[in-house]
Amino acid sequence: MTNAFEPLDSGTVPRFAGLPTFMRLPVAEPSQVDIAIIGVPFDLGTTNRAGTRHGPRELRNQSSLMRRVHHVTGLSPYDRARVADCGDVIIDPFDLMRSLDIITAHYEGVREVGALPLTAGGDHLISLPILRGLAKDSPVGLIQFDAHSDTYDTFFNGSKYTHGTPFRRAIEEGLVDPKRFVQIGLRGAISDAGNYDYAREMGVRIIFIEEFMERGVADVMAEARAIVGDAPTYVTFDIDGIDPSQAPGTGTPEIGGFSTREAQQMVRLLDGLDIIGADLVEVAPPFDPSGLTALTGATILFELLCVLAGVVEKKGAR
Amino acid sequence: MTNAFEPLDSGTVPRFAGLPTFMRLPVAEPSQVDIAIIGVPFDLGTTNRAGTRHGPRELRNQSSLMRRVHHVTGLSPYDRARVADCGDVIIDPFDLMRSLDIITAHYEGVREVGALPLTAGGDHLISLPILRGLAKDSPVGLIQFDAHSDTYDTFFNGSKYTHGTPFRRAIEEGLVDPKRFVQIGLRGAISDAGNYDYAREMGVRIIFIEEFMERGVADVMAEARAIVGDAPTYVTFDIDGIDPSQAPGTGTPEIGGFSTREAQQMVRLLDGLDIIGADLVEVAPPFDPSGLTALTGATILFELLCVLAGVVEKKGAR
Amino acid sequence: MTNAFEPLDSGTVPRFAGLPTFMRLPVAEPSQVDIAIIGVPFDLGTTNRAGTRHGPRELRNQSSLMRRVHHVTGLSPYDRARVADCGDVIIDPFDLMRSLDIITAHYEGVREVGALPLTAGGDHLISLPILRGLAKDSPVGLIQFDAHSDTYDTFFNGSKYTHGTPFRRAIEEGLVDPKRFVQIGLRGAISDAGNYDYAREMGVRIIFIEEFMERGVADVMAEARAIVGDAPTYVTFDIDGIDPSQAPGTGTPEIGGFSTREAQQMVRLLDGLDIIGADLVEVAPPFDPSGLTALTGATILFELLCVLAGVVEKKGAR
Amino acid sequence: MTNAFEPLDSGTVPRFAGLPTFMRLPVAEPSQVDIAIIGVPFDLGTTNRAGTRHGPRELRNQSSLMRRVHHVTGLSPYDRARVADCGDVIIDPFDLMRSLDIITAHYEGVREVGALPLTAGGDHLISLPILRGLAKDSPVGLIQFDAHSDTYDTFFNGSKYTHGTPFRRAIEEGLVDPKRFVQIGLRGAISDAGNYDYAREMGVRIIFIEEFMERGVADVMAEARAIVGDAPTYVTFDIDGIDPSQAPGTGTPEIGGFSTREAQQMVRLLDGLDIIGADLVEVAPPFDPSGLTALTGATILFELLCVLAGVVEKKGAR
Amino acid sequence: MTNAFEPLDSGTVPRFAGLPTFMRLPVAEPSQVDIAIIGVPFDLGTTNRAGTRHGPRELRNQSSLMRRVHHVTGLSPYDRARVADCGDVIIDPFDLMRSLDIITAHYEGVREVGALPLTAGGDHLISLPILRGLAKDSPVGLIQFDAHSDTYDTFFNGSKYTHGTPFRRAIEEGLVDPKRFVQIGLRGAISDAGNYDYAREMGVRIIFIEEFMERGVADVMAEARAIVGDAPTYVTFDIDGIDPSQAPGTGTPEIGGFSTREAQQMVRLLDGLDIIGADLVEVAPPFDPSGLTALTGATILFELLCVLAGVVEKKGAR
Amino acid sequence: MTNAFEPLDSGTVPRFAGLPTFMRLPVAEPSQVDIAIIGVPFDLGTTNRAGTRHGPRELRNQSSLMRRVHHVTGLSPYDRARVADCGDVIIDPFDLMRSLDIITAHYEGVREVGALPLTAGGDHLISLPILRGLAKDSPVGLIQFDAHSDTYDTFFNGSKYTHGTPFRRAIEEGLVDPKRFVQIGLRGAISDAGNYDYAREMGVRIIFIEEFMERGVADVMAEARAIVGDAPTYVTFDIDGIDPSQAPGTGTPEIGGFSTREAQQMVRLLDGLDIIGADLVEVAPPFDPSGLTALTGATILFELLCVLAGVVEKKGAR
Repeated sequence: MTNAFEPLDSGTVPRFAGLPTFMRLPVAEPSQVDIAIIGVPFDLGTTNRAGTRHGPRELRNQSSLMRRVHHVTGLSPYDRARVADCGDVIIDPFDLMRSLDIITAHYEGVREVGALPLTAGGDHLISLPILRGLAKDSPVGLIQFDAHSDTYDTFFNGSKYTHGTPFRRAIEEGLVDPKRFVQIGLRGAISDAGNYDYAREMGVRIIFIEEFMERGVADVMAEARAIVGDAPTYVTFDIDGIDPSQAPGTGTPEIGGFSTREAQQMVRLLDGLDIIGADLVEVAPPFDPSGLTALTGATILFELLCVLAGVVEKKGAR
Repeated sequence: MTNAFEPLDSGTVPRFAGLPTFMRLPVAEPSQVDIAIIGVPFDLGTTNRAGTRHGPRELRNQSSLMRRVHHVTGLSPYDRARVADCGDVIIDPFDLMRSLDIITAHYEGVREVGALPLTAGGDHLISLPILRGLAKDSPVGLIQFDAHSDTYDTFFNGSKYTHGTPFRRAIEEGLVDPKRFVQIGLRGAISDAGNYDYAREMGVRIIFIEEFMERGVADVMAEARAIVGDAPTYVTFDIDGIDPSQAPGTGTPEIGGFSTREAQQMVRLLDGLDIIGADLVEVAPPFDPSGLTALTGATILFELLCVLAGVVEKKGAR
Repeated sequence: MTNAFEPLDSGTVPRFAGLPTFMRLPVAEPSQVDIAIIGVPFDLGTTNRAGTRHGPRELRNQSSLMRRVHHVTGLSPYDRARVADCGDVIIDPFDLMRSLDIITAHYEGVREVGALPLTAGGDHLISLPILRGLAKDSPVGLIQFDAHSDTYDTFFNGSKYTHGTPFRRAIEEGLVDPKRFVQIGLRGAISDAGNYDYAREMGVRIIFIEEFMERGVADVMAEARAIVGDAPTYVTFDIDGIDPSQAPGTGTPEIGGFSTREAQQMVRLLDGLDIIGADLVEVAPPFDPSGLTALTGATILFELLCVLAGVVEKKGAR
Repeated sequence: MTNAFEPLDSGTVPRFAGLPTFMRLPVAEPSQVDIAIIGVPFDLGTTNRAGTRHGPRELRNQSSLMRRVHHVTGLSPYDRARVADCGDVIIDPFDLMRSLDIITAHYEGVREVGALPLTAGGDHLISLPILRGLAKDSPVGLIQFDAHSDTYDTFFNGSKYTHGTPFRRAIEEGLVDPKRFVQIGLRGAISDAGNYDYAREMGVRIIFIEEFMERGVADVMAEARAIVGDAPTYVTFDIDGIDPSQAPGTGTPEIGGFSTREAQQMVRLLDGLDIIGADLVEVAPPFDPSGLTALTGATILFELLCVLAGVVEKKGAR
Repeated sequence: MTNAFEPLDSGTVPRFAGLPTFMRLPVAEPSQVDIAIIGVPFDLGTTNRAGTRHGPRELRNQSSLMRRVHHVTGLSPYDRARVADCGDVIIDPFDLMRSLDIITAHYEGVREVGALPLTAGGDHLISLPILRGLAKDSPVGLIQFDAHSDTYDTFFNGSKYTHGTPFRRAIEEGLVDPKRFVQIGLRGAISDAGNYDYAREMGVRIIFIEEFMERGVADVMAEARAIVGDAPTYVTFDIDGIDPSQAPGTGTPEIGGFSTREAQQMVRLLDGLDIIGADLVEVAPPFDPSGLTALTGATILFELLCVLAGVVEKKGAR
Repeated sequence: MTNAFEPLDSGTVPRFAGLPTFMRLPVAEPSQVDIAIIGVPFDLGTTNRAGTRHGPRELRNQSSLMRRVHHVTGLSPYDRARVADCGDVIIDPFDLMRSLDIITAHYEGVREVGALPLTAGGDHLISLPILRGLAKDSPVGLIQFDAHSDTYDTFFNGSKYTHGTPFRRAIEEGLVDPKRFVQIGLRGAISDAGNYDYAREMGVRIIFIEEFMERGVADVMAEARAIVGDAPTYVTFDIDGIDPSQAPGTGTPEIGGFSTREAQQMVRLLDGLDIIGADLVEVAPPFDPSGLTALTGATILFELLCVLAGVVEKKGAR
């Protein structure tokens, strides 16, 4: 079905050759595909160690190591959906608010043409304008893999738009239904004992890493699936949810995270949900000299892509 | 109670700004606080790859990423105790024996003013003069997290004071009660089949990583707590106990260690013991280009600090 | 028995001193020893990121950190067998086929003098000429620890000899009995849905990482032992079987691998099998700036050495 | 005269011990000293690779290697002036314009107490608010060592405040007298052929690296001294003026720069000018894994300090 | 004239955004442009440390830092010629001889459509098939910047095609006129005292680094220009000609090379020659963790591009 | 003459293969050769950043890149003298004074058998026991290439034996004739204005980098040769004399050093002096992640070896 949108064959074109597009895919417009992989090189929301503006490029670079067919399902996303590298959103490095509007407009466009967006960030603030673009009509469910809740109110003299605040804004703006919102993997000391109060009061389900370790992947994901149910749901994966030994290159690393094995299993268990888009954020290449974080991120993007391809197949090609 | 000894608020002063004191705390004298965080930049006991002399500085640097409140207990050590960065012990890089005496004297001083010391090393030999300073009247219990037993007799032509020998000396000198001494996480090939004989004969309980893996954190820590009981106990955490994927920057790495998740759980299970001090040793920044080891170490220091704050609270402020 | 083949004593000669031979052993000829540790600095079979030609040197370098006696068994391989560093096979960097012949001839020589070879690679293609040297008379069993099956047919315009194809060739050439061949740890997306068909059709047992995680080390290894039985068996350990957080320096990393703790347990459970040789391959130092991969590899080599020493002891010294 | 403001003696306190203040100096207020070394951890003006927010900390760290007495003059700045680490300006990472105002106010305060500021950046935009704080009454002369002119008009949709524009703003605002403004070391391709037109039209003297190489340090500096004359002059040193082999850790490296030997000679030839302050900017630690850039920067700060101490001595202590 | 082939404007699209094509140019076919920038990711000719197969990708990546207009001439190559990223030549990593033929055929095609090729390697062997493609009718002149002569006869059992032998083959095959061939910057110990005999006997002019240092850039380049004269000439720039402090990431580094300032001056002095193509080779990213070598290489490519644009302008657009 | 002591031929044995001995030479005893290359893995004299204990190993490793014949003279040291890797001196990492005695005894032995020692350090303190071994009968001349004078009296509570004091001790002990002692390249701030007084008073000639830059290599070396004259002379080369861009991996880097081109020229101008031995010290691999410092050091060792081979040839083989 989708011959025009195949990744380069590594048995013909060596992996080290050619432009590093996402997954070695062709470059195309969202209107041409079912799933649009999009880079958002933005780190203006970062409170401490910036660098995720360089994330999309390194994720593309490491994604040269990816292959076609998932080894567990035996299915290839490229047989199930048309997928392309749809380029980067061109933000304004000197205007955070304008950049958010640019991103929002971009994802409204993606939504209008009917493509499912798979996003490579960028810091976690980008999930807010993405949700504005995708969920303006009615709130969506949200599954968040992360070390941090990102539901603070403000930072530094009242800044409301930071990578520590996107999901509070998303709830306030009616983009996310807090009753259909689950956070998995949270950990690490917090600035204030009341840090999680807002999320809890709104009904967000927080699963700390300690509970996760007790219950295991299958049980936690069963609950997560139940929370979001059959309605439209967005997935956001902060690379700092994964242990820093496997993803050191990020701005706010927290030791004691979940392993990549656990991460892969969790993403696979999203299969069958009505996912309207997904992102992988917080890969900061200046803190990732070995490239391992970008490799981990690229592989998670592939796992998310496989899930999204299942959504496309289920709904039928456009 | 402890307003004067708060860490800098990262919502006001960005984490990248300001002098990198331990946990972004004020600098003070041990006499002003309940818990004194102290650096011991010493690596004269190292047999192979030196560099832990630079440990305290990088542990301070990475501790800028720490926050106020433990996410599991909801408690902040800074609400329970006065804590400060009490600077470094100034050793003599050309005189091992004199340096040991300097350290001993320093910790006698800390003990006299009634502060609990939390130490950032330095190689593992520093635990010996610290114990001399803290435990000269009666032997204490000891919980050691480590890949190695550090109970050798001598190295190289009879050197008795090395980072492979401190706990043999501590037993011989009556500083540690070997019956109340437990070692957790040991592994790695040894130089001689009789390596562990001394410790075993003295009654030290050695829990190898293999036993640890079989039994799990809860069971092992229950035994460890029973071994040291209610009497005064010192805690020493060698970063090489943790797997080198999570703590590569150390002089004698051994693959197959415990994970940071396990390490954090174990430290939390020290809560309620009568701990008289703790150290985190063997972080060697020249072998830690990514800073991950120092981040892991700084987080373990925070976990130890939370336990010590419980001790302070229990005993009442001075 | 084996006084002439002892590693340097690190309590006398510091680990940083002296030439970095394997395990700090003497240099000798295979004919002088029971177990010959051999380097094969070859990466002509690599499809993407080369560099394993530098593997033997860095494995030697990191093996300076090894010690004499296994801490679980209390046994030293050097008490059970004569072991030496038998140097590198000198391949021709401009002639893949000639290099394979050089390697084959070298291992025929090792076999003839009756030494068991323990090899430090090199990319995975080297297992093929090693098997040609060792198993030309009758097919052997094979236990493979790996992220990849390495049973592809060809790459790039029909190249049959690559690091993705050695075990297909080995089956075709009658060097390995596919019914006595088990692969453990496979994972990662594949180029084609039919990728594993050849191996499956030939009767190779593939244990993916997912099955491994379900069943655990003991159960998997019990099956592996049953598959190879009592007959002669070769062991090949691709470092990329281990998670890239613990072995990042390799050409084709796949996240979600087994841990070093699991790897060590598995190798120990090879004890008692009739092992005729073993290799550790795919350590690529240019992608291993921290040296962790070479450290992991050197430790796995030590574990394999201990198993081989048991074989020697069982069969009696030559 | 200045006993209270001596750096730690490295023959007593090892360089690796103690908090890494600038030059190992005491921490003090500008009002207590003649020369205030100040960090401005700010990179909001950066157009591409951010990271100079971490500059002051690493410059402090590497300045531990500095010593007391200049080897050419035989003079110590600490004998000629009271000097201290006066901490960081606490900027707002989410508000560029507010941060500029914070910096301006800070330097107005420094000026009011009569201290000469020596600043460790931060990106080059910080020179603008520093000049606002120091030169609001009458324009000053400016000597700029740099690879770039930094006199662009705007970037990205009209942003006027970036690290490529500070000196155009400074001229427009009457802070710098363009007739007393010399730029040394410029090079590298430019975005537009008219790039240097504004500076040239205003009368700024641009000395490209090619002219510099032709004429040599002495001749160029004689001209520079003549241009600024005896009136008050500010000095700004962008680390990217130096060749990236000696200062790789910066956001916009340009090959073919001047050497550190040339840089040191040039700074020494500032001696005797009426310098009212100086800065060293654009050290970006995330791109400086070896620390060499911060070492180079710290040494240039020491050279600048020696020149400023001469100014203090000449004018007499306050 | 050439609006369709402009690099992305970094004042609109941040340098960190977008696919990293050479110089941020559009991707096009050689037939569409005057100058074709081409990657040749090939390192099969490497005798020791491989890795230049990854060169084109990292040269593209670092070329994001380049700009439009040369600061010395005030001219932009993009105003003088149509220039594009014409992709990579897809070589066969398992067949050196076939790869040479693929490269030859590719450059014959470039020549046929009349574009001037600017090549990013790859190891130095690629110059041979490029010359076969460009110079098959009559020998060309050659200016080689390099640490090594690359005129050996064979390596390892008679291999004639290695990165140490291309120019001997080129002379033998009549591709290069040895009387119009000059080598600049040679240095480093040699394998055999007769190493340079062949080149000398054929009339190649070798200018060692020592002679270069004595005479300076201008004098040496005047001679080089005289040697090649007005006839068609190829330019090959081995990055190892430059000192390893400025270009460490290469397989055969030699200390004591020329500086980037000297390199830039030399390339600029090629202006006006009848250059038919140029290459920049031997950038090996696995040995270039800081990216400095690729930055240096990308800037030399820009300098070469400016020279080639002058050739295009002189000859008139096609 | 010296067939038995040839380096491995890199056209037969690839540079990446084989044990990394110095210059790929055979291992032998000093009594078998004319020139003994010896490692002294010792850093107990280091005041700040240790790590030179790992120097000999990495110098050996990088010396794999060396070749046979000097390109300027056309002579090979291996044609003029018998040269071998004579292993490491086994020091005691816990006893500085005993280690000095071990080194002294070792070099007395080398002297007795009549070999010229070429030493790879180790920190600069090792020059003292080497001189004790070589010059006990009558003081020798000394040519020192260095950033520092190393003639301090004591450090830290009176330690007399540090890497900052060896040449004061050597003068005091009558090992070096201060009138025949020249130091070249000194620079960097000093701890005390009187730092150089001792050396000056004793008649040592100090040539600071500034004077060196003024006069150039030829003039400076003419003076140095005149100072030491025809009598026996030792040469000591501290890698920190070279600029840290070319030799970053050292404990006490000072910017603004001489270049490798200058260093090579200076060493070549030692030709014809009566040199009794030479050392290359202060390479600290933990601070040299790229290996460039060890490469620079290995090449300087080769240059020194060529000079020593001339001495051997002149005196006639033993």
